[in-house]
Amino acid sequence: MLRARTVVSKYAPKHISYSTKATVVNDSKNSLNISEKKVDNILNEVNKDQKLYMNDPVSPGSIFFLPDGTKIFNKLVEFMKLQQEYKFGFKEVITPLIYKKSLWEQSGHWINYKDDMFRVESQDKSKEEYGLKPMNCPGHCMIFQHADRSYSELPMRLSDYSPLHRNEASGALSGLTRVRKFHQDDGHIFCTPEQVGEEIAKCIKLIDLCYKRVFTLNRNSGPSYTLEVSTRPEKYIGELKTWDHAEDMLKNALESLKKDYSINEGDGAFYGPKIDIKVTDHKNKSHQVATIQLDFQLPERFKLRYKDKDNTYKRPIMIHRAVFGSLERFIAMLVETNEGSWPFWLNPRQAMIIPVNTKSAEQVKMAKEVHLKLKGEDIGSKNDFSIPVPNNGYHFNVDIDLRSEPIGRRIKDAINKKYSYIITVGDNEVKSNIYSIRNRQTFEIEALSYEKIFEQFKTLQTNYS
Amino acid sequence: MLRARTVVSKYAPKHISYSTKATVVNDSKNSLNISEKKVDNILNEVNKDQKLYMNDPVSPGSIFFLPDGTKIFNKLVEFMKLQQEYKFGFKEVITPLIYKKSLWEQSGHWINYKDDMFRVESQDKSKEEYGLKPMNCPGHCMIFQHADRSYSELPMRLSDYSPLHRNEASGALSGLTRVRKFHQDDGHIFCTPEQVGEEIAKCIKLIDLCYKRVFTLNRNSGPSYTLEVSTRPEKYIGELKTWDHAEDMLKNALESLKKDYSINEGDGAFYGPKIDIKVTDHKNKSHQVATIQLDFQLPERFKLRYKDKDNTYKRPIMIHRAVFGSLERFIAMLVETNEGSWPFWLNPRQAMIIPVNTKSAEQVKMAKEVHLKLKGEDIGSKNDFSIPVPNNGYHFNVDIDLRSEPIGRRIKDAINKKYSYIITVGDNEVKSNIYSIRNRQTFEIEALSYEKIFEQFKTLQTNYS
Repeated sequence: MLRARTVVSKYAPKHISYSTKATVVNDSKNSLNISEKKVDNILNEVNKDQKLYMNDPVSPGSIFFLPDGTKIFNKLVEFMKLQQEYKFGFKEVITPLIYKKSLWEQSGHWINYKDDMFRVESQDKSKEEYGLKPMNCPGHCMIFQHADRSYSELPMRLSDYSPLHRNEASGALSGLTRVRKFHQDDGHIFCTPEQVGEEIAKCIKLIDLCYKRVFTLNRNSGPSYTLEVSTRPEKYIGELKTWDHAEDMLKNALESLKKDYSINEGDGAFYGPKIDIKVTDHKNKSHQVATIQLDFQLPERFKLRYKDKDNTYKRPIMIHRAVFGSLERFIAMLVETNEGSWPFWLNPRQAMIIPVNTKSAEQVKMAKEVHLKLKGEDIGSKNDFSIPVPNNGYHFNVDIDLRSEPIGRRIKDAINKKYSYIITVGDNEVKSNIYSIRNRQTFEIEALSYEKIFEQFKTLQTNYS
Repeated sequence: MLRARTVVSKYAPKHISYSTKATVVNDSKNSLNISEKKVDNILNEVNKDQKLYMNDPVSPGSIFFLPDGTKIFNKLVEFMKLQQEYKFGFKEVITPLIYKKSLWEQSGHWINYKDDMFRVESQDKSKEEYGLKPMNCPGHCMIFQHADRSYSELPMRLSDYSPLHRNEASGALSGLTRVRKFHQDDGHIFCTPEQVGEEIAKCIKLIDLCYKRVFTLNRNSGPSYTLEVSTRPEKYIGELKTWDHAEDMLKNALESLKKDYSINEGDGAFYGPKIDIKVTDHKNKSHQVATIQLDFQLPERFKLRYKDKDNTYKRPIMIHRAVFGSLERFIAMLVETNEGSWPFWLNPRQAMIIPVNTKSAEQVKMAKEVHLKLKGEDIGSKNDFSIPVPNNGYHFNVDIDLRSEPIGRRIKDAINKKYSYIITVGDNEVKSNIYSIRNRQTFEIEALSYEKIFEQFKTLQTNYS
């Protein structure tokens, strides 16, 4: 069996190894370069057509998300916020990006991961020294620490979508896959030792929801993802008993969920064992996505504590987890597997409206009307600036092609641009007030009323299809 | 008449003066300190009760938004995104936070505003030097510059909600009003000289929508906001003719909208004239909110150009504008005027559910049911982790008080905590399957079915009430 491995730079923080890099199948010594080149080629090609993002030497490794890329980014974040908040009990916080050097000394980053971090300095007389955050955990520890916590507040699950910065070597930077600025669907759970099992199980359930239901990358018959448990390494901190207990907790959680997993003996982080989740796409390529890590170290370093039922203070356990991992890398993986053919709900080009004859005032009028309506711009109040756009509407990503090009040319362009649907308006459509709508995937053409189209779009959007 | 003035530190960037500071009525020499103290007192008091945010010396001037503060922040951003995108033609982008020193030299910041900016440095051998962005304009110029632009793409309106950093003196930092890290509902419009008038008019219409319809801070009879046009200063760049034209454009736009405005002769920025928008609250205090600025300088420095109808390249004009201004300061202003009594749509505490007798299994069951339903956690699929939370639901911020305290005590607590509604469930409610719901503002108690409550909440949320 091919073994997947994560490519990490020498500067990768050891403390928590959410990688920002692509993962490739390690089938030969040169696979890294070849596979990454392929990813970049697909990405570049799709990006040339779809203009999702750009890079510029003024900020190497930081993505400029253009409007259509921003739409995809926001949809993914919105999806995850809804799941985490309303099904998994997370609460979102917004935390600072720069922290004084003293914090990074306390967390252990300043000594161990300095080269990976950007140093920030004020340019006034004070010359205050900060580190630009490479991860959210110390900020979340500050929030936990800021109040007197009781057992009744646990498990406390904090989520955060902050931009993070890690200083990858500039030679390795490219496209969306090797970046210096990235965002995670990051979360930290502070809990009691007794709660760890159930929290891990819940993490796995969210991973199931994502990779079995919504992001089904594997169109073949294989499993949706694989799990690898990494156990105590030779160099470790903490007590042997605690480690055994933690490893048992991870394995028990997976077993009670009837999950198969492999073991990487001795491959855990120095502070605790972890589970890596990898998905294999239909091209048989493995991608590192989610991670679940147990941490006994940061709670100790930040002296976190909660008052237990018996009125004594105890140290919580911290679980670091991400389900998408890096949003940037996740988007790259989606592009690589869908080659720019986005599912409807994520597609920045959901439908193209084309009047057959752009000289027909009636056709153009009908086309413009459906365009505005599907965009959720109410025709009645569009120019009434005293009425706000309500927050319960649907706003589909639809465009209109009014160029005086032949209809065949315009349809072909829309197909090439990977619109999910193409809606055409000719004389028949004007007469019957019914639209011709063509599905990108099935090539089927249907005649539907506006209401039917709207309902269909709504269902696709709502169900993440 | 009292004249409002904006408090700016000596480090305030002159290039674009969105202030991150509080604005106070300048009615006496000491008003600054007294007024700011008052703001801080109200903020501190509300924050003590509502736990919206926290500060910590590990990152002076950077807010930690706690879960309830994050909810308010996200609601405001969501509101503005909807208006800007579906009524005003903006497209959102996500841009880098750090840019090489060379970019800031090109934009003029490195020489003129160095003390106000944080310097960023990689800690590997390369020691690359960056500036942490204090504003989004140079990043947006990079996007404009990255493709060959045509007149048909103008006006190009980009919006951005990036975190920004400005190094205020640490002595001046406090709460939400004087910060180093903040977010704007920032936007830049690239347009032709002919389009400036209409674009300004549209900015004013969005300001109307906000301050006349949604955020009506002035409960007295006065105007919703005042406009001040600042004209060419003694030290200016560019041509006199261009300045006269630009000033005329600003004034004409306001006059065609029949807006009163005052003039601050010679108070414009060195690169162009501007309009400052100030709102006066019911306590007669003036707050700087929105700003609209014309800029001929950055397009020149970044050599921005578009191909006009006549096939020649021309320089676009840049409009900087923000409607909330700093989100952090805007939230502070809302707290100061509402004293913690949030309108329903922004309230992180929309309803408290209280069973009269917590020992009654039926009352508790009925209370828990309405709690879950109003939170939008479908009882049927709540524990089915193969069904994602759809993106078309309503998720109200409701809590449930199951403490075994007397009912009067729990109602009083909910009132003190400023819940918009208090929903109680007693034996009568269980029998009739109807809830008692009490309105915070009117003190009215109604008997309503779940469906009626849901409809009422939905309407309030949808209409930003």
